[in-house]
Amino acid sequence: MKTSQLFQTALEPDALHTFFHDVRQTSERLAEPLSDADATVQSMADASPAKWHLAHTTWFFEAMVLKPFVPAYKTFDEDFHFLFNSYYETLGARQPRPRRGMITRPTLSHILDYRKHVDHALDALLRASPGQRVAELVELGCHHEQQHQELLLTDILHLFAQNPLHPAYRDPRPVTVETADLSPLSFTAFDEAIVEIGHGPVGFAYDSEGPRHRVLVEPFRLANRLVTNAEWADFVNDGGYQKSLLWLSEGWAKVQAEGWSQPLYWEERDGQNWMMTLRGFQPVDPTAPVTHISYFEADAFATWSGKRLPTEFEWETAAQGIAIQGNFLDTHRFRPKPASPHVGGLQQMFGDVWEWTRSAFLPYPRFRTVEGAVGEYNGKFMSGQFVLRGGSCVTPPGHMRASYRNFFPGHARWQFSGLRLAEDA
Amino acid sequence: MKTSQLFQTALEPDALHTFFHDVRQTSERLAEPLSDADATVQSMADASPAKWHLAHTTWFFEAMVLKPFVPAYKTFDEDFHFLFNSYYETLGARQPRPRRGMITRPTLSHILDYRKHVDHALDALLRASPGQRVAELVELGCHHEQQHQELLLTDILHLFAQNPLHPAYRDPRPVTVETADLSPLSFTAFDEAIVEIGHGPVGFAYDSEGPRHRVLVEPFRLANRLVTNAEWADFVNDGGYQKSLLWLSEGWAKVQAEGWSQPLYWEERDGQNWMMTLRGFQPVDPTAPVTHISYFEADAFATWSGKRLPTEFEWETAAQGIAIQGNFLDTHRFRPKPASPHVGGLQQMFGDVWEWTRSAFLPYPRFRTVEGAVGEYNGKFMSGQFVLRGGSCVTPPGHMRASYRNFFPGHARWQFSGLRLAEDA
Amino acid sequence: MKTSQLFQTALEPDALHTFFHDVRQTSERLAEPLSDADATVQSMADASPAKWHLAHTTWFFEAMVLKPFVPAYKTFDEDFHFLFNSYYETLGARQPRPRRGMITRPTLSHILDYRKHVDHALDALLRASPGQRVAELVELGCHHEQQHQELLLTDILHLFAQNPLHPAYRDPRPVTVETADLSPLSFTAFDEAIVEIGHGPVGFAYDSEGPRHRVLVEPFRLANRLVTNAEWADFVNDGGYQKSLLWLSEGWAKVQAEGWSQPLYWEERDGQNWMMTLRGFQPVDPTAPVTHISYFEADAFATWSGKRLPTEFEWETAAQGIAIQGNFLDTHRFRPKPASPHVGGLQQMFGDVWEWTRSAFLPYPRFRTVEGAVGEYNGKFMSGQFVLRGGSCVTPPGHMRASYRNFFPGHARWQFSGLRLAEDA
Amino acid sequence: MKTSQLFQTALEPDALHTFFHDVRQTSERLAEPLSDADATVQSMADASPAKWHLAHTTWFFEAMVLKPFVPAYKTFDEDFHFLFNSYYETLGARQPRPRRGMITRPTLSHILDYRKHVDHALDALLRASPGQRVAELVELGCHHEQQHQELLLTDILHLFAQNPLHPAYRDPRPVTVETADLSPLSFTAFDEAIVEIGHGPVGFAYDSEGPRHRVLVEPFRLANRLVTNAEWADFVNDGGYQKSLLWLSEGWAKVQAEGWSQPLYWEERDGQNWMMTLRGFQPVDPTAPVTHISYFEADAFATWSGKRLPTEFEWETAAQGIAIQGNFLDTHRFRPKPASPHVGGLQQMFGDVWEWTRSAFLPYPRFRTVEGAVGEYNGKFMSGQFVLRGGSCVTPPGHMRASYRNFFPGHARWQFSGLRLAEDA
Repeated sequence: MKTSQLFQTALEPDALHTFFHDVRQTSERLAEPLSDADATVQSMADASPAKWHLAHTTWFFEAMVLKPFVPAYKTFDEDFHFLFNSYYETLGARQPRPRRGMITRPTLSHILDYRKHVDHALDALLRASPGQRVAELVELGCHHEQQHQELLLTDILHLFAQNPLHPAYRDPRPVTVETADLSPLSFTAFDEAIVEIGHGPVGFAYDSEGPRHRVLVEPFRLANRLVTNAEWADFVNDGGYQKSLLWLSEGWAKVQAEGWSQPLYWEERDGQNWMMTLRGFQPVDPTAPVTHISYFEADAFATWSGKRLPTEFEWETAAQGIAIQGNFLDTHRFRPKPASPHVGGLQQMFGDVWEWTRSAFLPYPRFRTVEGAVGEYNGKFMSGQFVLRGGSCVTPPGHMRASYRNFFPGHARWQFSGLRLAEDA
Repeated sequence: MKTSQLFQTALEPDALHTFFHDVRQTSERLAEPLSDADATVQSMADASPAKWHLAHTTWFFEAMVLKPFVPAYKTFDEDFHFLFNSYYETLGARQPRPRRGMITRPTLSHILDYRKHVDHALDALLRASPGQRVAELVELGCHHEQQHQELLLTDILHLFAQNPLHPAYRDPRPVTVETADLSPLSFTAFDEAIVEIGHGPVGFAYDSEGPRHRVLVEPFRLANRLVTNAEWADFVNDGGYQKSLLWLSEGWAKVQAEGWSQPLYWEERDGQNWMMTLRGFQPVDPTAPVTHISYFEADAFATWSGKRLPTEFEWETAAQGIAIQGNFLDTHRFRPKPASPHVGGLQQMFGDVWEWTRSAFLPYPRFRTVEGAVGEYNGKFMSGQFVLRGGSCVTPPGHMRASYRNFFPGHARWQFSGLRLAEDA
Repeated sequence: MKTSQLFQTALEPDALHTFFHDVRQTSERLAEPLSDADATVQSMADASPAKWHLAHTTWFFEAMVLKPFVPAYKTFDEDFHFLFNSYYETLGARQPRPRRGMITRPTLSHILDYRKHVDHALDALLRASPGQRVAELVELGCHHEQQHQELLLTDILHLFAQNPLHPAYRDPRPVTVETADLSPLSFTAFDEAIVEIGHGPVGFAYDSEGPRHRVLVEPFRLANRLVTNAEWADFVNDGGYQKSLLWLSEGWAKVQAEGWSQPLYWEERDGQNWMMTLRGFQPVDPTAPVTHISYFEADAFATWSGKRLPTEFEWETAAQGIAIQGNFLDTHRFRPKPASPHVGGLQQMFGDVWEWTRSAFLPYPRFRTVEGAVGEYNGKFMSGQFVLRGGSCVTPPGHMRASYRNFFPGHARWQFSGLRLAEDA
Repeated sequence: MKTSQLFQTALEPDALHTFFHDVRQTSERLAEPLSDADATVQSMADASPAKWHLAHTTWFFEAMVLKPFVPAYKTFDEDFHFLFNSYYETLGARQPRPRRGMITRPTLSHILDYRKHVDHALDALLRASPGQRVAELVELGCHHEQQHQELLLTDILHLFAQNPLHPAYRDPRPVTVETADLSPLSFTAFDEAIVEIGHGPVGFAYDSEGPRHRVLVEPFRLANRLVTNAEWADFVNDGGYQKSLLWLSEGWAKVQAEGWSQPLYWEERDGQNWMMTLRGFQPVDPTAPVTHISYFEADAFATWSGKRLPTEFEWETAAQGIAIQGNFLDTHRFRPKPASPHVGGLQQMFGDVWEWTRSAFLPYPRFRTVEGAVGEYNGKFMSGQFVLRGGSCVTPPGHMRASYRNFFPGHARWQFSGLRLAEDA
């Protein structure tokens, strides 16, 4: 198997070099508002410290590219291999995941030195026109780092949400709740079709997005926009979290064990809903898409609505051909924006919240994992997870495409996850 | 929605009456070897006491049929509603599942009286030609009870396996290990096709087996027989349980947390593999299908073999038209039998071990749950589970069919679960 | 060290033989109301099945007396050694304590055969005038069995309390709540003294009751009677379970984690307090001593009262010379009786509820454990436990004496445990 | 009750003012080697972040002294009351203990500002000759802060021990293992006596050190020095951690559940014992006292030695009159020093390791807690703990005295805790 086919890279050397620099810079800009302590603490086993994200993405380039392909490369610190391997069993022992927050040393500033060291070596390598394999791995490393950029933000939000002082990651001034009229809910019909699903030959994609194959999709209808906070508040007020019949059995068990009664970061203050955001504690915007909900909540809401969640194939059918915009770091607002009332057709498909689908994260026909460490990327997570599609307000734009398959366990709530309704046609 | 379409019942009144009697009698015959204590203890939260199975299946008829449809029916004991409801939230509070083993009273013999009382009332009702709705519910109740017959046996096996004395459920004499030649492993090819999946209009089926719909199935090849104990021993001896790369991430976590190193009931004694069975502690038969393995183990084995598990659609494609035989109670041996070397084609599709598929248990297109308590039957379990197909050596034959979808979480091991290999064609 | 001094036995051969028979018979009479299932289920890790108590006490005689001292003794079943050893590390591996309830076979009736077999052998041995060492061990075995008689009853009560049907161990008719006037609370003063504490040379005692030694006890005052249910209800109604300042830190953590708000078996029905008893579900008798409370609750109550718990030395000082009566099996009522208003002085010192003291269970000066398995009896539990004094309504009378030191962890509630107030003089 | 009697303060205004400044400065000097991240992370529920120690000790002065006694005092930050209350239920809700490490903001430097703010206000107050009550509370606050100075060091050691890089708190150069001859073990005899136990009227003491009272202490003999690492290694090599009979039942359960096989921070490297220290990873010094052991380990060692642990009364009897020296911050070595061979009599009574006694932490006769928040200081911990006496190499000297009662649960290992043997005379 050729990995060039797998990762389907297409970037020219110059474009790759630029991409590399942009990605590496972006990570560091994301870390700017963080103190050493902010970047060190781990708020739960599922989250990682920001420092760890910054170091692990760097280690990825060191372990996958520099060490195997640059004989003269001088390892920055041999201990970092143990500290910053995530889960690559192929690559040896590592700091246990739930103990990542114990590593107060190296400091954040030392990690930034580590990044410089590796960037410098990569720079030289990329300038020297490395072969196809290296180019592929560097491109993979960049996408890998983009993935961690989003996680860095969701993990910082989770950490700050544990602090009773509700610190803001950026710019704590109260966000004006937009009162603009919302698009009325409507459904777009799709006919039965045999659809090509999965990533085509052009541009980068992860192995789990392929192989491209045909799926028979029955007729369905898809909502023009995401479910809003106001609609979610109706669900809450109607006792949605108390009605067991709306819930999957696993979900209902979670509701009871964890005392779920609203989205993860909501909190009532004087009769109004507030929520923790990357800009601090803010009133809930009724027209914005609901976010930080689990699959179980999304499914219960859909049942309550008399609708259902779409399958990932339905979603991809609808998304094919829709343009993705976004200038992540410059214009991102770190929160989903309301759908515009003036635009027809499908809105908010990319860049607001990840959309839970009713599809389990399973291999496509003829999927095979790659040999070696890179093969541990996606395949080993193909049990116990649901697929999310689209991309959120903290997803780098290069990380959104119609074929992209994000995945999380059904109980996960700390991502920017929401839902779009569907129904049988 | 008409439930007559849902459960697709077809039995004539007389046939239903006979079916009812057979099923009820079979349960009681299964309980014969059990003491009051055997029938009371719960060996883990996932298992239930035999007494509970006997009472709960009876309660099902009382709560779903007698109370709603027979005004003069006199409830046997009002408290049983609380004790023997399983999980029907619609029907009110119930004894918490992990505490089912605390109920030493009523005794087993009192539960048998309860069964007589309900049978008597059902008898009268069935003789009086009840309407279509009652007939459907009685037929559903019979299939429900058959499901619990299998669980009663797997739960008793689990209980007896906790006892260092290894008591035998039936006939503890050593089973002669059959040395008959085994069918050599071969693969049957299937062409790409759009296949009708799901139960058709004739005969009983659960709601989750429908609606019947078309699926595009790519070409594949399916093993002629199940994986054997001897083949599993090769996997064990090759270090299969120590090689993380063979495993799904969730599976590897289980291997480490639970110390898995062989199938659930295997135990080495003097260099030979023995296992706990319903006939007591027995040497492992190398030619018999491996059983009591989790999805994670099945998947790791398939990866080790360079093959994969089939999807449930592939399995159903192959199973359509294969005859199901078996006289459960009279001839069952309570253990899977080796494949015959003389028969060509697909063997052991029904009645040996449940076969893990790589399909998650999810709703078919246009699936909707029924209104009311009966609707809690399957739909609410559609997350976090994998589909098993076929049927085991302790499955009542009426409970096996090509469209039948059994389901368990990926870590479950106490069922008679095994695997059949598949590969891309 | 001579164990004859340790266990301080004094029984003549005939008296010992009679004692042995009485104790063995009593256990069997206690088991009479139990079904095989009742006797098999374990309701929590701290409790044991009745069958286990019956077998373990028998095993004690077999392992400590018959096997070492009767060469011709034929072991009843070699497997029982594994099944019924409690915690004697010296004597090898054993069924893990929390899994004692998995042993549905041997049946209760087989255990009764085991008892006969061992009794028969012991009978012969005792008739043959065995030596001093055997006599001591048999006497110890009898006291050991009496201890388990009480545990059998408290464990059955705990099991039956888990059953929503509230089965009665004996005679379920409602107990008439006695309305007799209660002794008014008064305090008896004791002067400062150097007191002899611990068991003297006459009669049986456990090793932990000695060596007898002198303790300087400051002046104190001790309540004439136990705290009643009515007084406890005042504590509850005054918010005792909500006021953190009344509680030890460990106790307050338990209140919150376990949701304690009343004694273990209390339950409000229609504004009245009921409780689970060995005679089934009964109204709480306001004049009876409160029972089934933890040390933490007893201590909080005492603090709320402006008093304190006595030390074990104060209690023993007061108890010396008080007569112990009681005909356990014939007249016991399986519940504590109210104090009589007519009797002066200290009442209810023996035979109502065990009284929590503020003394930790620690070795007396010069205490040393005996060599061998018998040495594992008490010494190894000398951490993390508080001493209780007196004896309860389900304590065999031979198991009550002024020097007797019962002990349980501060959170234990399922014993018949209550309290008596004390104060500084 | 007058608290002036309770805390028995004796400091003159000037001495108090000096004491206050010294203590406050010392804390800040202890924090100097720490980064913001070091000072923020919580390595286990029992430990607290350094930042928290610095802030909580400051909050103590603010909440107990400034707010009640200085009307014009301006609270530094109202939120800190929630963040830095430890466990004073009287004073309202607080950050849950196991979540103290989530507080990345305020930063360490902001906490140092907080300290300045409070110091400034206290300065003014102390200069203005406040009344007796304020003086007492300030003195209490200083002792309270000294207690936290030790905890800050033990908690930092625990945190750094989680880091595979073994960072050093101070000066990581290898410590030369002293090979000086060790005092041979000998025992000093004490006659039976009625001893005055508890703190007398002069100087500061905690409430739990009184009231002073008489105890009858039987004759005993006490070791001249602490148990050494070399002696502990003998215990390890003799299988001490594998012999269940040496252990208390609770202790043996811990050995098995936690896999204890050596002191907490020991680690074998190439056949030699190393250990984590505040000076980084160092070879174990065979002549230094063993430390970081639990009560259960100390007790098992004593049993293995044929000796026992002393009671706290025996220890105090022996310690009365022994001088305490030490210049904590200037000369401390952050590790216990070997006993000198040249000095006769009892050595190492203060300032090396805390010595486990076999006494449970219980109230002395006539002990009563003070009214109000200060009363929550010690009394509520009087269950489930053992007393340690002496003081360790990281105990401020003002925090050591013959009557001082330190206490920890029997399983605690992260303090500088060791043992001295005793025996009956």
